[in-house]
Amino acid sequence: MTIDLNVDLGEGFGAWRGAGDDEQLLQYVTSANVACGFHAGDPSIMRVTVAACVAAGVAVGAHPSYPDLRGFGRVPMMLPVERVVDDVVYQVGALQAVARLQGTRVGHVKPHGALYEAVAVDPALALRLANALAALGADLVLVLPARSAAASALAAAGHGVRLEGFADRAYLAGGLLAPRRRAGAVLEDEETVTAQALALALGEEFPTQDGTTLRLTVDTVCLHSDTRGATDLARAVRRRLSAAGVTLAAPSGQ
Amino acid sequence: MTIDLNVDLGEGFGAWRGAGDDEQLLQYVTSANVACGFHAGDPSIMRVTVAACVAAGVAVGAHPSYPDLRGFGRVPMMLPVERVVDDVVYQVGALQAVARLQGTRVGHVKPHGALYEAVAVDPALALRLANALAALGADLVLVLPARSAAASALAAAGHGVRLEGFADRAYLAGGLLAPRRRAGAVLEDEETVTAQALALALGEEFPTQDGTTLRLTVDTVCLHSDTRGATDLARAVRRRLSAAGVTLAAPSGQ
Amino acid sequence: MTIDLNVDLGEGFGAWRGAGDDEQLLQYVTSANVACGFHAGDPSIMRVTVAACVAAGVAVGAHPSYPDLRGFGRVPMMLPVERVVDDVVYQVGALQAVARLQGTRVGHVKPHGALYEAVAVDPALALRLANALAALGADLVLVLPARSAAASALAAAGHGVRLEGFADRAYLAGGLLAPRRRAGAVLEDEETVTAQALALALGEEFPTQDGTTLRLTVDTVCLHSDTRGATDLARAVRRRLSAAGVTLAAPSGQ
Amino acid sequence: MTIDLNVDLGEGFGAWRGAGDDEQLLQYVTSANVACGFHAGDPSIMRVTVAACVAAGVAVGAHPSYPDLRGFGRVPMMLPVERVVDDVVYQVGALQAVARLQGTRVGHVKPHGALYEAVAVDPALALRLANALAALGADLVLVLPARSAAASALAAAGHGVRLEGFADRAYLAGGLLAPRRRAGAVLEDEETVTAQALALALGEEFPTQDGTTLRLTVDTVCLHSDTRGATDLARAVRRRLSAAGVTLAAPSGQ
Repeated sequence: MTIDLNVDLGEGFGAWRGAGDDEQLLQYVTSANVACGFHAGDPSIMRVTVAACVAAGVAVGAHPSYPDLRGFGRVPMMLPVERVVDDVVYQVGALQAVARLQGTRVGHVKPHGALYEAVAVDPALALRLANALAALGADLVLVLPARSAAASALAAAGHGVRLEGFADRAYLAGGLLAPRRRAGAVLEDEETVTAQALALALGEEFPTQDGTTLRLTVDTVCLHSDTRGATDLARAVRRRLSAAGVTLAAPSGQ
Repeated sequence: MTIDLNVDLGEGFGAWRGAGDDEQLLQYVTSANVACGFHAGDPSIMRVTVAACVAAGVAVGAHPSYPDLRGFGRVPMMLPVERVVDDVVYQVGALQAVARLQGTRVGHVKPHGALYEAVAVDPALALRLANALAALGADLVLVLPARSAAASALAAAGHGVRLEGFADRAYLAGGLLAPRRRAGAVLEDEETVTAQALALALGEEFPTQDGTTLRLTVDTVCLHSDTRGATDLARAVRRRLSAAGVTLAAPSGQ
Repeated sequence: MTIDLNVDLGEGFGAWRGAGDDEQLLQYVTSANVACGFHAGDPSIMRVTVAACVAAGVAVGAHPSYPDLRGFGRVPMMLPVERVVDDVVYQVGALQAVARLQGTRVGHVKPHGALYEAVAVDPALALRLANALAALGADLVLVLPARSAAASALAAAGHGVRLEGFADRAYLAGGLLAPRRRAGAVLEDEETVTAQALALALGEEFPTQDGTTLRLTVDTVCLHSDTRGATDLARAVRRRLSAAGVTLAAPSGQ
Repeated sequence: MTIDLNVDLGEGFGAWRGAGDDEQLLQYVTSANVACGFHAGDPSIMRVTVAACVAAGVAVGAHPSYPDLRGFGRVPMMLPVERVVDDVVYQVGALQAVARLQGTRVGHVKPHGALYEAVAVDPALALRLANALAALGADLVLVLPARSAAASALAAAGHGVRLEGFADRAYLAGGLLAPRRRAGAVLEDEETVTAQALALALGEEFPTQDGTTLRLTVDTVCLHSDTRGATDLARAVRRRLSAAGVTLAAPSGQ
């Protein structure tokens, strides 16, 4: 039983630091989504972040976003598909160069924030992105929500896709995340978070915000670096998964 | 006798077009320096520009800049060397991805505007850039002014370097360009520009703004796309060079 | 019979010029909406534009936008009301300072692009904006589409509002503009544009894209500076309105 | 004996917070320099910061910068004087609007970072700025380093100027600040900082980094909100000055 534990890193800009403690988090996770400059993460921070991933043996992925420093990539924008693809290619390419200089490579691409939510429900956009990424590297895989329309479409089209579940976000009955602005949408309680992480890893049922239960099949479990106590949560998740006999490792090939 | 004729392309942003007529210019030049988003050239314009280069059989290079949309990359900035390298790596990587999707590759890197001038006189910065570019692609070569301190340092260190002369800019006696704000710094007269282009191609003497003459050895001749009548100048330069038996071609390997 | 003829000005950025010929357009219009830096119009362009308005005797208004240089303010964004108000206050204040230095004042505020469309259908946002503008200057009036929900709400709440119609945009039967991406949405034919301008000025019927007719009561008629042939259209509109006995003048108080 | 104690506030951007604890600092200072969006401080943060100043009874000033979010306004840029004036007018105007909505006004303008250093040594730029500010509000006063060429020029020309000394920065013998990158340039020791603050307030001698002493006549003493322990230093400075019989108050008129 093996699972990937991913976290968003490098989410500062210029003199501003991201909410998480990247160095600490890197001790516990197995893959990192590195901000690429559009919602956070200037070129210098990208270098430092990738170097830290290499030092920690953590797999590097890109975390592209709508162009939105001010709104941290969380502002929904209605952009033409072609422009979104252009922006993702630009960001992934930039990170690929940074990674090459640090002696590593970019193995996955996880859209950030509002873009992640837009891709999840837009199979046409997901397919366009997957085709573009295939041209950038044979094994560059998109990370998308388990049970999303986009993930199904990619699988049906023969594209690889990495299915994701969130340990620190409450789900609704249908498998969608509870919207961030809703009370209780972000889980911070260690018992709740680690239990949900374990259920995700084992493909077992866990409770939703609606009082029902949900079972998801995932390849990777996400913890947000800006959730309060993120480092402690990451350590606790790792401990609980290990204790349950689940091996934490990035997907093979990375 | 072979020479490269290069031009800066893709220098619009969003709805704004660059000063030159890219499609027209591509008929006459042999390599293009494509803006990478920091002084001009958003990801969509980069895609369109690279596609046009491919269609025209023109070699693609990167044209990275200080981050300065407002000042079109012409504002001198005092930035730490490491940050400049980070920014160039980011921009070059982004263009490499765009190029890969269009079925081509980035063969050279020509810093833009104030950054070009800063690199030219800073051998330490040029060496740092050349080392970074070597890691991004074995044959990525920097374009620098002929007779510059930086070009000499790169050659001495065993790095490739592409020496550049300007057909549409007046020179001073010592081999420096007359500053842009000086009257007569930009040459627009067809006879003057084509004569200077030919002299550069043949390694012959041409007049400086100081009343002396200058002889430069160059690998590539530049025309600015925002010089008035740029397209007509490009056609005239091509015609005059061809008539003199000079073959226009991108450096081998591209 | 008096009507205001307005145009968007100062829509360049840095070295890039806007699509229209501001100097020419200023000969024909009576009020100008000046870009404030978020979709176009940097502080230097704002100064030059306001100075040109003063020289031409044209009333100055603010043309605030979502923060979107890349998309020219035409990308719909889902932003919290409070943030939109903050952004508009910032932009209007900046232009007020520029105007003060040029010896004039800002008399109206016309949201740009996607923000204009968002305000038009959102009475709550319009009221928040109107309240904020009231605090910035007793007579700062919002420009909104005639027959829009927002305009009605402002009038009902006792706020001033300037009702706008477009001479160079096709309407749908219900009074909405035909979306820009729809064929024929932008009117460029001189006879059509001047006829629609006159009908708007006189409150008479004019044809919609649906084959019906529409009658709007407006205080100001807009011409877009980036419509092809904008200067010629502006001159023709002015001529036709004058010939019909309609006086072109900015609303009193400006 | 009265002195002003000023601090830079609102230096976050979007989701990123500034280094200081603004709420805490506002308990101890008498005037605040509010970031205006070019190096930090988006429109929403500006509103929150000004509201907090009003609640704390602290005088509001503008803290305009070169356009440089990435470098936090600390990157020296060679910009034409006219463009710098345009940018400062824009930023001050934006803050004036924010202040008006919060029921207060902007009383002073303190350039930030690299711009502060550029203005200090450039009397021509300082005069241009002072003239522009005079048009924006009869009593808008520039804050400049005591003993700077710019401050002298303003005084000689009959402009008001507020002379500043720094409690938490080491000085050189000539009255210049030790450059930030130099070891010991930022003072963090409470005894040192409070002693220097008191000497500045009383116009008494204090030690420089060169081993000499310096005496400055100042109207305002600055503490940096991003100096480690800034809140504790602010409280200690206030306590020591009060104990010495120095009244802390913003300059009259604010």
